[in-house]
Amino acid sequence: MSKEAAQEILSQLESLRLIDPHTHINPHSAASETLADILGYHYYTELAHSAGLERSQIEEPGISPKEKVARLVPWLAHIENTAQYSWLLEICSVFFDFGEERITESNWEGLYDAALKKMAQPDWEQQVLQTSGLDQVYLTNDFDDPLEGFDTDFYVPCLRTDDLVFHLEKSETRERLQKATDSSPADAASFQDALEKLFTHFTSRGARACAISLPPHFAPAKVPTALADTLIAAVFGGKELSDSQKVQLSNFVFWSLAEQCKEHRLPFDLMIGVNRRVYESGVFQGQDLYDKRVSLIQYKQLLNAFPDVTFPVSVLSETSNQELVSYSWIFPNVVTNGHWWYSNIPVFIERDSRSRLQAAPLNKQIGYYSDMYKLEFALPKFAMYRRILARILANDFVGDRGWSIDRAVCAGQQILRGNVETVFGGIA
Amino acid sequence: MSKEAAQEILSQLESLRLIDPHTHINPHSAASETLADILGYHYYTELAHSAGLERSQIEEPGISPKEKVARLVPWLAHIENTAQYSWLLEICSVFFDFGEERITESNWEGLYDAALKKMAQPDWEQQVLQTSGLDQVYLTNDFDDPLEGFDTDFYVPCLRTDDLVFHLEKSETRERLQKATDSSPADAASFQDALEKLFTHFTSRGARACAISLPPHFAPAKVPTALADTLIAAVFGGKELSDSQKVQLSNFVFWSLAEQCKEHRLPFDLMIGVNRRVYESGVFQGQDLYDKRVSLIQYKQLLNAFPDVTFPVSVLSETSNQELVSYSWIFPNVVTNGHWWYSNIPVFIERDSRSRLQAAPLNKQIGYYSDMYKLEFALPKFAMYRRILARILANDFVGDRGWSIDRAVCAGQQILRGNVETVFGGIA
Amino acid sequence: MSKEAAQEILSQLESLRLIDPHTHINPHSAASETLADILGYHYYTELAHSAGLERSQIEEPGISPKEKVARLVPWLAHIENTAQYSWLLEICSVFFDFGEERITESNWEGLYDAALKKMAQPDWEQQVLQTSGLDQVYLTNDFDDPLEGFDTDFYVPCLRTDDLVFHLEKSETRERLQKATDSSPADAASFQDALEKLFTHFTSRGARACAISLPPHFAPAKVPTALADTLIAAVFGGKELSDSQKVQLSNFVFWSLAEQCKEHRLPFDLMIGVNRRVYESGVFQGQDLYDKRVSLIQYKQLLNAFPDVTFPVSVLSETSNQELVSYSWIFPNVVTNGHWWYSNIPVFIERDSRSRLQAAPLNKQIGYYSDMYKLEFALPKFAMYRRILARILANDFVGDRGWSIDRAVCAGQQILRGNVETVFGGIA
Repeated sequence: MSKEAAQEILSQLESLRLIDPHTHINPHSAASETLADILGYHYYTELAHSAGLERSQIEEPGISPKEKVARLVPWLAHIENTAQYSWLLEICSVFFDFGEERITESNWEGLYDAALKKMAQPDWEQQVLQTSGLDQVYLTNDFDDPLEGFDTDFYVPCLRTDDLVFHLEKSETRERLQKATDSSPADAASFQDALEKLFTHFTSRGARACAISLPPHFAPAKVPTALADTLIAAVFGGKELSDSQKVQLSNFVFWSLAEQCKEHRLPFDLMIGVNRRVYESGVFQGQDLYDKRVSLIQYKQLLNAFPDVTFPVSVLSETSNQELVSYSWIFPNVVTNGHWWYSNIPVFIERDSRSRLQAAPLNKQIGYYSDMYKLEFALPKFAMYRRILARILANDFVGDRGWSIDRAVCAGQQILRGNVETVFGGIA
Repeated sequence: MSKEAAQEILSQLESLRLIDPHTHINPHSAASETLADILGYHYYTELAHSAGLERSQIEEPGISPKEKVARLVPWLAHIENTAQYSWLLEICSVFFDFGEERITESNWEGLYDAALKKMAQPDWEQQVLQTSGLDQVYLTNDFDDPLEGFDTDFYVPCLRTDDLVFHLEKSETRERLQKATDSSPADAASFQDALEKLFTHFTSRGARACAISLPPHFAPAKVPTALADTLIAAVFGGKELSDSQKVQLSNFVFWSLAEQCKEHRLPFDLMIGVNRRVYESGVFQGQDLYDKRVSLIQYKQLLNAFPDVTFPVSVLSETSNQELVSYSWIFPNVVTNGHWWYSNIPVFIERDSRSRLQAAPLNKQIGYYSDMYKLEFALPKFAMYRRILARILANDFVGDRGWSIDRAVCAGQQILRGNVETVFGGIA
Repeated sequence: MSKEAAQEILSQLESLRLIDPHTHINPHSAASETLADILGYHYYTELAHSAGLERSQIEEPGISPKEKVARLVPWLAHIENTAQYSWLLEICSVFFDFGEERITESNWEGLYDAALKKMAQPDWEQQVLQTSGLDQVYLTNDFDDPLEGFDTDFYVPCLRTDDLVFHLEKSETRERLQKATDSSPADAASFQDALEKLFTHFTSRGARACAISLPPHFAPAKVPTALADTLIAAVFGGKELSDSQKVQLSNFVFWSLAEQCKEHRLPFDLMIGVNRRVYESGVFQGQDLYDKRVSLIQYKQLLNAFPDVTFPVSVLSETSNQELVSYSWIFPNVVTNGHWWYSNIPVFIERDSRSRLQAAPLNKQIGYYSDMYKLEFALPKFAMYRRILARILANDFVGDRGWSIDRAVCAGQQILRGNVETVFGGIA
């Protein structure tokens, strides 16, 4: 009975059109051109490398897309068990009519060619979007992105701010900021003016969020203006900062971003807990890990200081999920946001979703985002999430709580789509 | 088959009469008088606030109970998914004959009036206790509570000591202690004499436990008497203490309480992991959160120093549960105690209970306490726990281990009630 | 259907012969001689002690094995719920034809005598191995073990190095090292020469791993040679080291071990997270606990410095499991290894296994080791693991992913046995 309920809920959720509120899509090249764009996703290159394939094989300069795929395919045998592989198979099955159970050294070439043919169709991007049921795709844009040359109503800009907060001591970052804002920050106020220009530019182009990923040790705090003046003058004067000054500079920039979010009524996506470049010999985008010893208590001052800013929070470690549930239950401005990266596999999605559904207000839960780099990934990722969600709704709500199927479907629709619109703003 | 086993176990457990070993019941006003007493429970006010209702609306001075409920009801729509809401619905259904699936703006007034009528009956408290199957209800008493005017055999006193350990630098706390003990502590020994008077008073009135909630950073340690003399003299002399002195003072008072527990053979309930006033603009009792970076290793010195004191331990974060299981498996004086606050939802209760049942001695597990402020909450909370417990016993023991139903029921009865009596003392 | 799939997978996995890649077996006395060897396992003595039996009763000098069992049996009633007890019952049932549901004061003596009779048979060890389906049993050998007098092809040596890393400041350890290597280390190089001799000795006797258990605070780092020279000279000169010097000495020894592992192509088993002697009055081997505040980020420098050394990693706390999965997913040299100690109960095995199977390459997962002290324990422990594994394969792979039974069985065989051979080396 519970299986039938899950099936019924699932099929209703499947007909819902989606907004994907966090991706890394390049709107100028959103869909894949060859299977290498699919298999080149860091989830596969890092797993193949972890299973034994040398990085130099994967990243050899000048190899053709087909050669790259040829090198990766033999290693897929070691990762067939993974959820990541199941996405790949679902992509190949749905989009490229691949009917086999495995991608092997003997069948990959036919798959490659079939995919190539499909992807070469002029409306491939639209086909993918249509098949995936996507109404909008949110982007991750560099702060100096001109946001031109694409439909910002569909590919919604989001202002990514890691560089500003953590890499302002690099001259390249400062030059990009000066260029993007046509300004030369020399103190706290003029730096904030530059940020103001960025936010004005982004919101004028329909941006729906400011976003940042944060290391486990980060604990934002307000910095006195006099100190901020000194720090900005020093860093823009090309002076070396001490480690503690770097922390204070990051704090100042971060706090200033939160102030802009408040002013521009933009949600501030916090993606908490990633350590960059932990495995320095890893493949491209396959070098980051984490330290689970992080607590949302580190954000106490921020959450109290900005009651008017909505913070959709993603946590990297499943050991942070209960804190996220509890903080979202207590703080009106904390929203639970998706299932990020290392937590984006069924066992963690299921655990984390169940507790969110059992303890946080329903209107404060963004169910899922794909985090994809290429459009083809929204389909299998959302499908994975939807199956888990349907099962939870069937077991915990229809089964244990006596809800009707309709009521369960309604709840599912709200966290899959409704809340995305209420938190970030609906379709124009 | 497993469902049938769960049902059979559940129905047998449902006939068991209960002792609730930790509540915040006011014995002079134990039952609710209006629906506002139910909906005013911080679980609802904080969730409604989190969902969007302003604190000033909830806590406006002078509003009538009915007005308060009227303001909260529209926000219930956002929290119908929560376990907390399911308690509310079960209360309304069982106690007030409410037959609808939701409490809405169109049906709440009838419910309010029906509840009011029931609660106005002179034996309402007895009706609630009878329906809930409660034989005893443990209290949480301020250290200066006279413990008079109620039946201490039924409403069992427990000495709550947070104020003594963490707020002795407030003159109000010291004055309360001086008044309650008719003494003026000036050094370690005289302070301990004052504690001795408190414990004598409490145990003479049938107290069954000393209890305290502890912040994540707390790590109790024995303080040399000479230092303790200085600290007590300073604080009772009205002198300001440094931060490190405050920590040492807390340590001294806490350690002295453990010594009293030893002398008076009283279990010492440790509720580990809460940070107070994290969200300072939150509703009443809805401001506390936590930092999961806490370990029971912080209690190493204490647990070794007091082998004769039983420590029923509650942990706030589910990430602490495995430590609790392991410490209870190794330390004879550590008992697992219930499912506290942010961990008191089905998904965490289930996980935590399963590991306790699989790895800690059965005679060292207190299954559940309600933590309630009003009597009506024992029923749905214990019902939630019992359903989960029955399912675990059916799956993990009848199913996987081949136990008979009777044997599973026996185990369930022991952690639901038997262990409460052996750990805290049976009914007089 | 899923139950039938689980049953079919299980019965196929049950026919697989096993290699147990981590035990504490004494190859000169591998099997038990009386039931006291079984019940004397620290899992039972510590649980009985925790449930209320005094340590002095358990460890009274001079008591007979039968008396020891007689004293433990009454306390088993309190731990029948535990997974550990289920191993005991399975041992008694399979090996001693015990047919009852419980071991009680009225039936234990017959069991004791029946076991004694069986164990007295000259081929008892072989019977146990045969019934258990064991092809090889890896040992835990002191660094100065002569490794003589037993079949090292079957009882495979592993070099345990806790003493070297953490107890070199004890003269006994240094003397054992000097004797075992016939050398007198006086600086870094001569100490490393001594290690070289140990590794040469061990590998010449077929050792398959170097192994160590590590406290939660340990964070290995490379130590400059000049400093290492000073430390080695000091400690072998009998000088007292400061606390920070002890840490640096541990770091130097540990790092030198990793270098030997590289040179000798030996996997380095890291068992991360145990605090020794937390409960100092506990029974033998029942004094250790942990601090869950540990992160694999502490091993960043090590994992980057030794890409050619395979590190099979065990974590003590289930809150470390996701990190283990993620680090194994990213670092080619990190292998997930079994379910250690406090995590070796069904609820944690199930959770941890599911995430490993869903996210780490299959060729990098060692499913299980028994950690046993006596041969009889491999059978119930592997049986427990296999049942959980079969269920996961049936649910998550046959059910959710549409795998055939055969494919699921194949995956199970690989992590139960195949990977043990590829990671540590196959049978000679």
